[in-house]
Amino acid sequence: MINIEPIKYNHPKLTLVGAGPGDPDLITIKGMKAISDADVVLYDALIDKELLDYTKSDAIKVYVGKRGGMRSFKQDQINLLIVKYAYEYGHVVRLKGGDPFVFGRGHEELEYAENFGIDTHIIPGITSAISVPTLKGIPVTRRGISESFWVITGSTRSGKLSKDLELAAQSTATIIVLMGMKNLPEIVALYRQLGISETSVGIIQNGSTKKEVSVFGTMDNIQDVVAKKNIKSPAIIVIGKVVETHPELSELLAEINHY
Amino acid sequence: MINIEPIKYNHPKLTLVGAGPGDPDLITIKGMKAISDADVVLYDALIDKELLDYTKSDAIKVYVGKRGGMRSFKQDQINLLIVKYAYEYGHVVRLKGGDPFVFGRGHEELEYAENFGIDTHIIPGITSAISVPTLKGIPVTRRGISESFWVITGSTRSGKLSKDLELAAQSTATIIVLMGMKNLPEIVALYRQLGISETSVGIIQNGSTKKEVSVFGTMDNIQDVVAKKNIKSPAIIVIGKVVETHPELSELLAEINHY
Repeated sequence: MINIEPIKYNHPKLTLVGAGPGDPDLITIKGMKAISDADVVLYDALIDKELLDYTKSDAIKVYVGKRGGMRSFKQDQINLLIVKYAYEYGHVVRLKGGDPFVFGRGHEELEYAENFGIDTHIIPGITSAISVPTLKGIPVTRRGISESFWVITGSTRSGKLSKDLELAAQSTATIIVLMGMKNLPEIVALYRQLGISETSVGIIQNGSTKKEVSVFGTMDNIQDVVAKKNIKSPAIIVIGKVVETHPELSELLAEINHY
Repeated sequence: MINIEPIKYNHPKLTLVGAGPGDPDLITIKGMKAISDADVVLYDALIDKELLDYTKSDAIKVYVGKRGGMRSFKQDQINLLIVKYAYEYGHVVRLKGGDPFVFGRGHEELEYAENFGIDTHIIPGITSAISVPTLKGIPVTRRGISESFWVITGSTRSGKLSKDLELAAQSTATIIVLMGMKNLPEIVALYRQLGISETSVGIIQNGSTKKEVSVFGTMDNIQDVVAKKNIKSPAIIVIGKVVETHPELSELLAEINHY
């Protein structure tokens, strides 16, 4: 006789939680409450481990970020893990850096789970795109200087620079490029081509954490400055007049001219 | 004899705190801790009063938002109040809706206080620009649909529509217009002029709160829909292909065509 076990059903539920830019206290109260209620937490790289202290003692914690530069799980596998854990244990919290909907593929994970009848919830996070420049003293908007800001990913499907950047560069918008360090030479080339290579730019690596490093300059010299300070991903590139409000900029420009 | 009282000095300190889009649990843990530590809280309209429950019992709470459509304090007066309270009582928390640096004039308040030797701190908030569409099921970015998003204020110094919108409309960016309800006719006219009036648009009033109302359509019919549902400020306008991912859109379009 075949013994068919009844499927364990724990009201499968997925909550997508944005953890914010790095500082563990920049998660929302709602996000913290979700972690406390979770049966399983699937977390990314860039998440401060302190956030896992909010979990119940018997919660399962699974790291699904990169290991040695390589993804430990592909997106498809993460989607499957969410479904599997939700049906097996109940409430899955998917904890992602920044905001899960700013180039975070949050919607894909949500839809996949919904297709399996899983109850889904969203808890936004503070996006690094805005908070990292802000905390560094660069407001993304400022009356009389910038009436808008444009957030672009450097990491498009094709791997090429988004064509949107050419339109953005001609506007008064503050431009914030996420995951764009490998496109920096192309970005600089675009500004040269448009004849506006004197545009100010700031780059912040590991923003809002103790490992934060930043450089400032213009499109003309930023590549030299980046090389000199060895700035790498994950870094945020901020372009536009608001960057000049940063007190370090004039100082650093003077320093650069010295070389 | 003139009795000169020594100036009371309580280590004057200002913390600018973003309260998030409306739901009181969408403030950060850091923001909540700042409120708990405050001697004085200056708060805006659009702040959930529940957040004031975190204050110490003897904290002074001052409403500096609008009363009956009129500002109760002008920006200059708010700046002065911050300085006065910081020197008189110590730690002033300036609690603002959304993120104080997304068209919130946060930087102006900060600089003013710094000029008076006040120690300043920033705690970012979840901006409505991203979270309100997200919570409504519209991701501002989505792989293969939108590689960027552009946040613009409808309320520029001049009162006119920002020229940046014309560039943005030609890009693949999701466009988010804050404080733009009075500019809606101009926005619609611009899309007609560019020959792309079939572009999708969603408008969300009082997002993330119990009073939330939303409408969806295209540039061609959105003004009718807004009139029919009597949508007013404060509302967020989201424009672009990502709006079509919202399940209500096709349904509502059908309903509109019925009239």
